[in-house]
Amino acid sequence: MKTVSENKAFGGVQGVYTHSSAACSCEMTFAVYLPPQAEKGPVPCLWYLSGLTCTHENAMVKAGLQAHASAHGLAVVFPDTSPRGEGIADDEAYDLGQGAGFYVDATEAPWAAHFKMETYIASELRDLVQERFPVSVRQGITGHSMGGHGALTLAMKYPGHYQSLSAFAPIVNPSESDWGRKQFGAYLGGDESQWRAHDATLLLQKKGWGSDILIDQGSNDQFLEFLKPEAFSAALARIRTPSVFRMQEGYDHSYYFVSTFGGDHVAWHAERLTG
Amino acid sequence: MKTVSENKAFGGVQGVYTHSSAACSCEMTFAVYLPPQAEKGPVPCLWYLSGLTCTHENAMVKAGLQAHASAHGLAVVFPDTSPRGEGIADDEAYDLGQGAGFYVDATEAPWAAHFKMETYIASELRDLVQERFPVSVRQGITGHSMGGHGALTLAMKYPGHYQSLSAFAPIVNPSESDWGRKQFGAYLGGDESQWRAHDATLLLQKKGWGSDILIDQGSNDQFLEFLKPEAFSAALARIRTPSVFRMQEGYDHSYYFVSTFGGDHVAWHAERLTG
Repeated sequence: MKTVSENKAFGGVQGVYTHSSAACSCEMTFAVYLPPQAEKGPVPCLWYLSGLTCTHENAMVKAGLQAHASAHGLAVVFPDTSPRGEGIADDEAYDLGQGAGFYVDATEAPWAAHFKMETYIASELRDLVQERFPVSVRQGITGHSMGGHGALTLAMKYPGHYQSLSAFAPIVNPSESDWGRKQFGAYLGGDESQWRAHDATLLLQKKGWGSDILIDQGSNDQFLEFLKPEAFSAALARIRTPSVFRMQEGYDHSYYFVSTFGGDHVAWHAERLTG
Repeated sequence: MKTVSENKAFGGVQGVYTHSSAACSCEMTFAVYLPPQAEKGPVPCLWYLSGLTCTHENAMVKAGLQAHASAHGLAVVFPDTSPRGEGIADDEAYDLGQGAGFYVDATEAPWAAHFKMETYIASELRDLVQERFPVSVRQGITGHSMGGHGALTLAMKYPGHYQSLSAFAPIVNPSESDWGRKQFGAYLGGDESQWRAHDATLLLQKKGWGSDILIDQGSNDQFLEFLKPEAFSAALARIRTPSVFRMQEGYDHSYYFVSTFGGDHVAWHAERLTG
């Protein structure tokens, strides 16, 4: 693991690191914010998964989560959204290939060689962060858009890994959306039965989630037809999942939306991870 | 004036606008954050001047000021740092020309045709913002690095315009610094007596400032030799200016430093503008 940069922020340290990923067979970059409380011992950890086109950097510099993480004593991990680099498969479209890993392990060529984001986030990077940073086993997960999809699906697939869950404007029903069908077809192949394990609405109905969930969604989000919040909100209600689903009037899909409600999400996770 | 974008943020609106600037003889871009309180009538206004290489956008997306401006009911204006575009003079160096206006009115070729940032900020954009946005005549000014230089010098040159003043890691003694001598020589010519009116330390000693000043400076700032905080802190003490000069341990020159202390600065201005 190499240190790219470390900057003091809100009494803690915002770091950026690279490492050689076995899962993705390439060098990967990620960021970790450590609050000042981490100087005294392990702190709970919140995973923030980013959306389409993002790297580790977008949320790190735009979402303003560090202020809240410092106040609550949480670490925050910002992974990249896909493998990257020359020699790694890509597509001209913004929503496939590099920057668009969709948090699944690809099984199809040409993606299968590097696009193993599920294993990368839920296992490899998790182990690395636990080994190299003062974080405890109390971990939560959140994310925005494609990253909200990642947070919801990984939490339900690996319930032992995450004790708290939230999402900002998540893609919640990808097997029925143009943000999902194209990518699942490319990464996982044409057998739609293989897609179900990566669809938050279907997963929730099948497996449920053992705790509660916070979702924020902007009512003026320009991508509502791709996100399909109604599918997930209906499923939450149908299976009586303890949850808070907030339709926030006038907010769009931008980081202004994420930063506006970021404090609420960090507080939600802190309450569940530090209690 | 044209609207480039408007996004809801912290209950208010973060907008980006362009207009044809008479002072700079080109199209200029600026951003305004209006807090929710502006729906009910004019609110006080804080000017945030950015540093070298920045546009209106850097602080807008990275400094996290909107959360605090919303809480305190302040508008925030983020101007660009220079004229820009084809046909406008520039230099290969990052610290001269486009992105490096230094908040002065250039008198020398080739800069004098467009580089009129003092008039632009203190007069033209001020008038435009007052005319087109619900802001009151209660206005404060702050900035980072070169923008801190701009805030300090414009406040002292136009005391009737600004009722509150602060700065983040400002360039405070440019006529004695490599961040200043090169630019003043280019923009204002070789007669150093013309530079004095744009040097915060010299201005403070000559004119003073009628109210108090808040300055934050990171002790690990990688540009301390260019900023020369000791010159300004000495001048503040020498002329007994009511002031708070904070040397913040371990912080560098980045936006993590600005965002960490941004809440304190917005509160400082709000206390003086809304009292």
